[in-house]
Amino acid sequence: MPVRRRQSFPVDRVRRYLEPGPVVLLSTAWREERAVMTLGWHMMLGYDLVGTYIWEANHSHRLARRSRECVINLPTADLLDTVVGIGNCSSADVDKFARFGLDAQPGREVAAPLIGQCHASFECRLHETRITADYPLFVWRVVAAHVAPRPKDPSTLHYLGEGRFMVAGRTVSRRRLFR
Amino acid sequence: MPVRRRQSFPVDRVRRYLEPGPVVLLSTAWREERAVMTLGWHMMLGYDLVGTYIWEANHSHRLARRSRECVINLPTADLLDTVVGIGNCSSADVDKFARFGLDAQPGREVAAPLIGQCHASFECRLHETRITADYPLFVWRVVAAHVAPRPKDPSTLHYLGEGRFMVAGRTVSRRRLFR
Repeated sequence: MPVRRRQSFPVDRVRRYLEPGPVVLLSTAWREERAVMTLGWHMMLGYDLVGTYIWEANHSHRLARRSRECVINLPTADLLDTVVGIGNCSSADVDKFARFGLDAQPGREVAAPLIGQCHASFECRLHETRITADYPLFVWRVVAAHVAPRPKDPSTLHYLGEGRFMVAGRTVSRRRLFR
Repeated sequence: MPVRRRQSFPVDRVRRYLEPGPVVLLSTAWREERAVMTLGWHMMLGYDLVGTYIWEANHSHRLARRSRECVINLPTADLLDTVVGIGNCSSADVDKFARFGLDAQPGREVAAPLIGQCHASFECRLHETRITADYPLFVWRVVAAHVAPRPKDPSTLHYLGEGRFMVAGRTVSRRRLFR
C-alpha cells in the first residue's frame, strides 16, 4: 500500500470527496491510545461541517469524545481488504496501525493521526456533540485538508451491507445544464 | 422513463440503498402543494432512521415541516438528466411532477407522493427536527419501503459538485472476510 503525496486543500471544498458517500476511515487519539474505524454513516452538514455516527460500542467513541478531534481519511477502492480488516476488529484489542501497516502521519491541527495511504485526510475538531438514546451524532468542523492531486477522480468504496461494496469511479458531467 | 414495479421491502433494511450515499429525490406534500428536490446530504442514523439536510431556502423545507412527512426516492443512473433538471428549478415556480413527467403514486402511510420511475421509494415520518442556525437537519423514520426487485444492484448517482456525478454500480464482495 503506497503512501500518497497529498497537498493542502481548501476545507470548504471537502464535500467533493464526502458528499458521494464513500466508506471512510476515522482515526482518533487520546493520550497514549489511538484508534481507527471504518465508517459509512456520515453526511455533510455545511461546507466545512461533517456529521458522523459513531456507535458507543466503538472504541473510537470514547477517544473522539475525550479528544474532541478526529481525522476522516478517504481510502480508494484498492484498499478494500484493509478497509474490511479495519472494520472487523476493535482498537480495544489491537493497534490497527501496526496490524495493517498504516502510515500514521502527524496532523497540522489535531493530534489524531492521518493515514498516509489514503487519497485524502481531513483533520476535524468537534463542533457539536449530540448524543441521544437514538443516535450518537458527532458534528465536526474540518480544520485542515490534505488531498492527493492525482488521480483527479479516485475510485471509492460504498457500503451495501453484508460484506458487499459498490465501486464508484466513472464520472459523468452535466455542467452545461446547471444554471 | 419507465415506471418500475416495486415490492414491499423491510424498513429496517433500507440502509442497503441509502448508506452508499446516492443522490435521492425527496418528495413532499402539504394541502394543495407538492414538491420534489434533489438531495445529496443525507445519512443513516439508525436502521430505520435517516437524516436529511434541507436548506430553508428550499421550497421543500416548508412542506416537510408542515406535513412532517416525506418520501425519499432512489433514482438510477439512467435518470441523470431528470435528477439534474429537478435540482435546477424550484417547486415554488413550477410543478416538477408535470414538467418532468414524474409518475406521482399515492403512499401507503404518508400523503407525499412516491415517484414511480425510481428504483425505490421510502415513506418517512418526521422523528425529530433539529433546526439550528448551523444546519437544518430533519431526522426521519422510514415507515414503509417499496423497492424494484430487479436489477439487484442498480447503478446510482453520487454527486461530486459542479455538475459532476460518479456512477456506482460494479459490486465487490468480501463477505468471506466478515466475522
